[in-house]
Amino acid sequence: MADIGVLGLGVMGRNLSLNLADHGYVTAVFNRHPEVTDRFLTECRQREPSWPRLQGFHELESFVNAIERPRRIVLLVKAGDPTDLTIENLLPFLDPGDILIDGGNAHWLDTIRRERELRRREILFVGSGISGGETGARFGPSLMAGGSLEAWKRIEPVWLDIAAKVDPKTGDPIEGAAPGKPVRGGEPCAAWVGENGAGHYVKMVHNGIEYIDMQLIAESYWLLKHLGGFDNATLADIFAHWNQGDLASYLVAITAEILRQPDPAGEGYLIDRILDAAGQKGTGKWAAGSALDLGVPANALAEAVFARFLSTLVEQRHQASRMLDGPQPLQANDPDALTRQLERCLYSAKICAYAQGFQLMQAAQEEYGWHFDFATIARIWRGGCIIRARFLNRIANAFETAPDLANLLLAEDFRRVLSEGHSAWRRSVADAALSGLPVPALASALAYYDSYRSERLPANLIQAQRDYFGAHAYERVDRPRGEFFHFDWHGSRQEICSD
Amino acid sequence: MADIGVLGLGVMGRNLSLNLADHGYVTAVFNRHPEVTDRFLTECRQREPSWPRLQGFHELESFVNAIERPRRIVLLVKAGDPTDLTIENLLPFLDPGDILIDGGNAHWLDTIRRERELRRREILFVGSGISGGETGARFGPSLMAGGSLEAWKRIEPVWLDIAAKVDPKTGDPIEGAAPGKPVRGGEPCAAWVGENGAGHYVKMVHNGIEYIDMQLIAESYWLLKHLGGFDNATLADIFAHWNQGDLASYLVAITAEILRQPDPAGEGYLIDRILDAAGQKGTGKWAAGSALDLGVPANALAEAVFARFLSTLVEQRHQASRMLDGPQPLQANDPDALTRQLERCLYSAKICAYAQGFQLMQAAQEEYGWHFDFATIARIWRGGCIIRARFLNRIANAFETAPDLANLLLAEDFRRVLSEGHSAWRRSVADAALSGLPVPALASALAYYDSYRSERLPANLIQAQRDYFGAHAYERVDRPRGEFFHFDWHGSRQEICSD
Repeated sequence: MADIGVLGLGVMGRNLSLNLADHGYVTAVFNRHPEVTDRFLTECRQREPSWPRLQGFHELESFVNAIERPRRIVLLVKAGDPTDLTIENLLPFLDPGDILIDGGNAHWLDTIRRERELRRREILFVGSGISGGETGARFGPSLMAGGSLEAWKRIEPVWLDIAAKVDPKTGDPIEGAAPGKPVRGGEPCAAWVGENGAGHYVKMVHNGIEYIDMQLIAESYWLLKHLGGFDNATLADIFAHWNQGDLASYLVAITAEILRQPDPAGEGYLIDRILDAAGQKGTGKWAAGSALDLGVPANALAEAVFARFLSTLVEQRHQASRMLDGPQPLQANDPDALTRQLERCLYSAKICAYAQGFQLMQAAQEEYGWHFDFATIARIWRGGCIIRARFLNRIANAFETAPDLANLLLAEDFRRVLSEGHSAWRRSVADAALSGLPVPALASALAYYDSYRSERLPANLIQAQRDYFGAHAYERVDRPRGEFFHFDWHGSRQEICSD
Repeated sequence: MADIGVLGLGVMGRNLSLNLADHGYVTAVFNRHPEVTDRFLTECRQREPSWPRLQGFHELESFVNAIERPRRIVLLVKAGDPTDLTIENLLPFLDPGDILIDGGNAHWLDTIRRERELRRREILFVGSGISGGETGARFGPSLMAGGSLEAWKRIEPVWLDIAAKVDPKTGDPIEGAAPGKPVRGGEPCAAWVGENGAGHYVKMVHNGIEYIDMQLIAESYWLLKHLGGFDNATLADIFAHWNQGDLASYLVAITAEILRQPDPAGEGYLIDRILDAAGQKGTGKWAAGSALDLGVPANALAEAVFARFLSTLVEQRHQASRMLDGPQPLQANDPDALTRQLERCLYSAKICAYAQGFQLMQAAQEEYGWHFDFATIARIWRGGCIIRARFLNRIANAFETAPDLANLLLAEDFRRVLSEGHSAWRRSVADAALSGLPVPALASALAYYDSYRSERLPANLIQAQRDYFGAHAYERVDRPRGEFFHFDWHGSRQEICSD
C-alpha cells in the first residue's frame, strides 16, 4: 500500500512526489491524463534513484484504493473550479477520516468553504501553502498548513520530513539536497499555522511580501544603475556583496546571478534584453485586496502590485517618454558611498515590507478567528521559500521576545536598524524624486514609516472636510475617543455633540 | 397625482424632495417610520416655500398609488440589503413600465444585478450617483445616471432641472440657490453615463478621486505648516489665494474656511482640536479594489485609502512617535517660494489623481461593456459635487479635443502644466522625505508620473527573478511581444522559446 497519494502531475506535483519518494514514502501518483502519469514514471525510471517508491495509476478509483487508510492525498491541481471538480470526483471513493491536502495557491475563502463542506462528510481537509517554486517542491519547500489539528497530527511527520531545513544555530538554510539524497536533520520549515484557511492565507501574505521584496530590489538596482552608473558586472558584485550581510537572502543572491548572466542569444547581458513588463499570478492582488478589506495600511504591498500593472503598459510608456518632461538623473560623487547608502535604504524598507505583512496577518486572525504564532511563521520562512532570508531569524527572535508586538517596527532590534538606516533611506527617496527615477515601493514604505511614527497627522483636515460637506462628525484631541462632534459650518457655527 | 416619489427620508431624501418641490414637481414622500414623514412635513410647513408640493404617506401602497403612471420613484435608503428589501416591498404595488431610481451609494455590481432582475419584471431600474452631500441634494447635486436609455429619457427632464448648474461660458458653478428659489438656466450637471451599473461606478470613481484630492490637500497643508512654519490664519490665506488660481475648487475653498475657524469650545483654532483619525464609508476601498481587479495602476487612490487607515492607529502612533527616530523638518528660507512651489506641486499631483480615475473608468468600460463619454463625465463634475473644480473644465476640453486620449497626462494642456510643475513637485517630495513628513499621495503620484514616462523600468529584473524561481518566462526587447522565453538557470544555461 502507498503511504500517501499525489493528485496532479504538473511541475509541482511531480517534484513533490519525488521529494516524498526520496524521504522513503511510497507515493501513489495520478493525473487526469494517463499519458502524463506514464511519461513521468518513464522519466523517473531513467534518472531518479527513488523511482521504485512511485506508483502510477490511470483510474481514480484504483489510485485511491492503493493508499493506506486513513488516506492522505495531496492535491496539486489548478486553484479555483478545477480543485472543486477534483474533490467532487474523488468523494465517491473516499472513506470517513481520509485527509485531503490542497497544496495549490487556493484563495483562503475557498479553503474555509471546502474545509467546512468536507467536514460534514467526515473528510478532513488541510489547505497547505507550499512555497519555493519547483526547486522547493523537489528538495524542500516551506510548508504552511491550515486545517483541523487532528488532520495535521496525521500529516505532520511527512510535512516535517519533506520541508526545507535550516541550521538550528544560525537559522540559515541547509543546502545540498540532491535526487535520492535528501537533507537529514536541521529544523524543518513546516508548521500548522491555524484552522481552515489559515495556511493559504499565510502563503498569500508570503507572496505579498515577495512582491514588495522584488519591487524594492528592482528599485535599488535601478538607483544603483542610474545614480551610480555601474555596469552589470559591478551591479552583480554589489548584490553578491550585499548577500554577505544583513540583506543575505535568496532574492538578493539570485539577483547577483541574474545580473552576471550574458545574453545567450547575442552580445551583452541577458538582463538588458528582458522586456520590462512584469507578469503576475494574482496572489499579490488578493493580499492587497485583503488589506483594503481589513483596513490594514499595507501601502507598499499595493504599490508593488501596481508597479507590475504599470510596467505592462509598454507602448504607452514609450509614447509618454517622448512627451512628458523629467530631469536628468543626479550622478553620485562617491559610488561606494551610494552603494552603502542603498544597502541601508533597502534594509530599512524591507523591514517595513515585513511589518506590513505581519500587520495583515494580525488583522486577519481577528477577522477569521485564527491564532497565529508569528515567531513560528517567521521561522518556517527561513528556508525553502522565495523570501527566505537571514533577516527572518531576527524577526522570529523579535516575536519570540515579544509575541504581542504591535508592529515589527517597534522591536528593539529593528528600531536600532531603522535608527541607523532612515537617513540613507530618506536620501535615496529624495535623490530618486529629484532624478526622475520612480521608486514607488521605497517611497511608500518610507511614508508608512513616517506616518506610523507621527504623533500627529494631517488627517484632522480630512475629518474637518468630511464634517463640512457630509456632516460626518469628528472626534477631538481634548475629549475621550468615541465622543463625536459636528460643527454647523453652514448655519449657527456652533459645535454639537452628536451622540 | 404626484409627479415623482421619494422613498427614504434621511437627510439626502429630505433634501432631494425639497429640491424637487422647488422645481415645481409634486413629490410624494414616504419613510418606513411614519413619524419621520410627519416630522419632515411639519418642518416643511414652517419654513419651506415649496411645502404645498410635498405629499406625505404612511402606507407604501397609498404612496405608490399617488404617483402618476408610469411612476418615477427615487430610493434613498441605505445601500446593500435595505435597498433589496425596499424593492421587494415595493414590487407588489408597481406596474410594468414603472421606474425605480436608486440614488444611494450602491455597489455597481448590485446595481447591475438589480437592473437585470427588475427588467425581467418589466420594471425599469436606474442607478444614479448623487454627489454633493446634503447641500448638493438640496440646491443642486451632480447626477450620474446609469440604466436603460428608455428609463433615462423619462427622468432626464427632472434630473436636468434639479442638478447643479454651471456657467456655460466659464464652466464655473452658478451659486445662489435658496429655498423656493432654484437656479434657472446654466448647463446642468446631470447625464446618463451608460447602462445598468455605469452611474454608480462613475460615482464611485468620483469618490475615489475625492479621497486622493483630500489626501493631497492634507499633505500640502502639512508641508506648508511644518516646512513653512505658517500659522493657521496664514495657511487659510494661502488656500484662499490658491482658490483664485488653477487650484480653484470646492475642497480648496472649504479648506481655507476650515483653517480660519476658531475653536468654538475654547481658545485657538478648531483644526488643532480635531482628532487626526480619518473615517471612511467604503467607496474609496471599492474603487481601489476595482483598480486591483482590473489591473489599473491607481496607486495614489490606494495610498489615500491606506493613509486614512493608518491615521486611525492613534494609540500606536503616539507610542511609536517616542520610539522611532526621524529628522527635524527642514525650514524654508523663503516662505513665499515654498508656497508657490507647493501650489505647483499640488496641481501636478492632482492631474495624476484624475488621470488614475479616468484610467479606472477606461478599464471598467471594457470589463462591463459601457461606453463612457469622458468629456461629459468631466462636465457634470464641474458643479454640485465634492470634487468640483475649475480644472474639470480643462479636463472636459481635453477629452473633447481627443476622446481617445490614452491618458490625461498626455493631453497638450496638462503636458504643459506638468512640464512647468514637475520640478516643484519633486522638490516637495524630496523635502518631505528628508524632513520626516509623510506624503504618501504626493510621492505615489510622482512615482506614477515618472513610471508612466519611463521608456524602461526595472521590471526586467522582476521578470528575470520570476523566470529564475518559477520558470514563468519573459519576453525580450528584441523579439515581438507575445513570444516568451525561459532561461534554464539551474541546468543547461540555455534559452528556450516557450511557445
